[in-house]
Amino acid sequence: MDWLIRCSSLAGCYDIRYQYRLAMWDSIWINTHLATLREGRYGVVRRAALAAEGGRIAWVGARADLPHEPEQLAREVHDCEGRWITPGLIDCHTHLVHGGNLAHDFDLRSQGASEEEIVRSGGGILATVRDTRNASEMELIRSASARLKRLMDEGVTTVEIKSGYGLDTRNEMKLLRIARLLGESDAVTVNTTFFGAPTPPPEYEGRSDDYVQFVCDEMLPEVAAAGLADAVDADCGRATQQQARRMLQAAKALGLPVRLHADLDSDSGGAALAASLGALSADGLAYASDAGIEAMAAAGTVAVLLPGTHFFTRSQRTPPVAGLRRHRVRMALATDCNPASSPSTSILLMLNLACTLFRLTPEEALAGVTCHAAQALGPGANCGSLEAGKDADLAIWEIDDPAELAYAMGANPCVGVVKRGVPVHRAI
Amino acid sequence: MDWLIRCSSLAGCYDIRYQYRLAMWDSIWINTHLATLREGRYGVVRRAALAAEGGRIAWVGARADLPHEPEQLAREVHDCEGRWITPGLIDCHTHLVHGGNLAHDFDLRSQGASEEEIVRSGGGILATVRDTRNASEMELIRSASARLKRLMDEGVTTVEIKSGYGLDTRNEMKLLRIARLLGESDAVTVNTTFFGAPTPPPEYEGRSDDYVQFVCDEMLPEVAAAGLADAVDADCGRATQQQARRMLQAAKALGLPVRLHADLDSDSGGAALAASLGALSADGLAYASDAGIEAMAAAGTVAVLLPGTHFFTRSQRTPPVAGLRRHRVRMALATDCNPASSPSTSILLMLNLACTLFRLTPEEALAGVTCHAAQALGPGANCGSLEAGKDADLAIWEIDDPAELAYAMGANPCVGVVKRGVPVHRAI
Repeated sequence: MDWLIRCSSLAGCYDIRYQYRLAMWDSIWINTHLATLREGRYGVVRRAALAAEGGRIAWVGARADLPHEPEQLAREVHDCEGRWITPGLIDCHTHLVHGGNLAHDFDLRSQGASEEEIVRSGGGILATVRDTRNASEMELIRSASARLKRLMDEGVTTVEIKSGYGLDTRNEMKLLRIARLLGESDAVTVNTTFFGAPTPPPEYEGRSDDYVQFVCDEMLPEVAAAGLADAVDADCGRATQQQARRMLQAAKALGLPVRLHADLDSDSGGAALAASLGALSADGLAYASDAGIEAMAAAGTVAVLLPGTHFFTRSQRTPPVAGLRRHRVRMALATDCNPASSPSTSILLMLNLACTLFRLTPEEALAGVTCHAAQALGPGANCGSLEAGKDADLAIWEIDDPAELAYAMGANPCVGVVKRGVPVHRAI
Repeated sequence: MDWLIRCSSLAGCYDIRYQYRLAMWDSIWINTHLATLREGRYGVVRRAALAAEGGRIAWVGARADLPHEPEQLAREVHDCEGRWITPGLIDCHTHLVHGGNLAHDFDLRSQGASEEEIVRSGGGILATVRDTRNASEMELIRSASARLKRLMDEGVTTVEIKSGYGLDTRNEMKLLRIARLLGESDAVTVNTTFFGAPTPPPEYEGRSDDYVQFVCDEMLPEVAAAGLADAVDADCGRATQQQARRMLQAAKALGLPVRLHADLDSDSGGAALAASLGALSADGLAYASDAGIEAMAAAGTVAVLLPGTHFFTRSQRTPPVAGLRRHRVRMALATDCNPASSPSTSILLMLNLACTLFRLTPEEALAGVTCHAAQALGPGANCGSLEAGKDADLAIWEIDDPAELAYAMGANPCVGVVKRGVPVHRAI
């Protein structure tokens, strides 16, 4: 037996070990502490071990409960030297693929310009539509890859990407194709969402109902037929409730799950609409009513909070966290990565912003970018917690306590990422 | 001549080029755009070049104005491929060397605990004093180095570090020695400040005047004699005005320049006190009076704003930016890196926070971490702008416009750092 253990670090002995039925797992991580994030709690296991087989988590528990020495149990043994492991983080709401940026708007705003003046000077969301349409696919891939890399450097292993800056069939499909392309990496899962954006393109100016009809009749069927979208999103509040409902009903008729930007600027009944459609998530929610929240709870709709957007737009209204807690609605957090209202690629900053601005606890914040974020992506997202059967997506952290992830402002203690059981990145 | 240009990339030909008096400079950066930050403005030079000799900037200007081909003018030619260069950034107010962290306090606070409850549970600033006193020098060096590296990764080439968590002679000097040690790097300049902290240590509980006397009579002379401090700081508001004045006058009597935490929680006359003592800077200033600001302007005292602290402590009061502008007081920005009120190592985040929360312009924000920050450190800091004679401390950025440095939240487009003419870091 001793001989087998010693030889386990040598290539060539695997067949022997298989023969003796000792090498059950591909990899095992030892000398670590886990925050498993089952059911929204840290679920801390100290002096733990975690094993992966075939890209999935095979075993999680206290090291002392391992039936044999780690070298007898797995072909690769990773010594974490006391570092923490959490589930790989999930950014469940981004507009990551877009052309240009709106730094000039930011500059003008800081000098006191009104939003109207900014739009008149050629800025605002339609500037991003113009820059996105004008950008080549290669330019969009390059800029989106850089943003995605920043998220991945912070331990993100799954990211949702919405279209919505193309606003015509060709360009919306271009954005979704690029999102799919980014997901061909072995290091990250990309979940795509067709976003029926609330601002019609210039060619539909003043005809928003016509644009919605066009989305329902032409864009959505093409997108669905091409298999480019995992879900469909709309905006109840910036578009009318009727417009948002039409788009999401059209999506459901095509068999696609739905999500909804809801009640971002006013109580527009968005939370209740999301619930009535069985939406995976309702996002934003600053002005959501208590009745809407109650309906979300009954429907199992996840609340995706966007603290970066709240901060960057200097919103005075925080989402109704007390009501969400009371009704036991799951709260997720996301960067909302977009040039107009949240030019951020830091998921860790979202944890700090959510705790500081919304008074989430660090535990709620971490659940918001792991298990609850996974639920916002639907049952296909087999990630977000450390338990047997889930994808072995792990983030490894140089911390003494998981609360540090939310406490620090602008630091990145991520020292390793594992995607489906394979180490993909090591910062130090 | 052609032959000389071609051979300039080969080792061994330098002597020939010196012989022909062609190799005037050590290095030149070409194919770049500069934000020179002279006198608080971007000072943009597009299609520029910058040359360094002996660690200092030798020439700055438009590439078209170079008298010869770059290869004829410098031994090393760095092609920036269109990237921007700014002065290396300066974090002019940090408490970077300390033991432990206060993530647990952050957690309790998010659960609704009052500051009194947090202190009763063993948290608060005296927890940091305890952790700092108990930490070995090696532990402090290790944790401070990690924080310093994060700052340097964002283009910081000069950082100020205050003592103030030791609160006895041995431990205060330990902190300052470690700060000096961190500054022995070729990659960063460390400016040290003895901070006469406003919270007396447990052994002086209830006897703050006695503690101030001890600082003036024993600590300061020892620190000065050891040459460990480049300046002395106190806190007018958390300590009384009289206590702060006594410490700074004692410092001045020892020939040390002074700075002052001023009016952070109330108008305590701190701004005026700083001005009356000819302080290099007054820091914080949320409650500073207009008269105090006017006095600072007359004295040339720099206003160091701390947006991270404002954010993390959820302060309702923003510093009087309009008054500071009206009286033409120079505004610097700093992380305030400390465990209690600004656990941040991101100078770039400070730019965004300052613009979003205080409505600084991106240009003011960048001046705040370059030329104005240099002035807060006194005339010994030969950095903060790109002009001949200044240290060749450079940060190289993957941006299209300097406003992007403040616009992005939690991104780091720094792709290179140069310290005294020598490339010290390259992120990509």
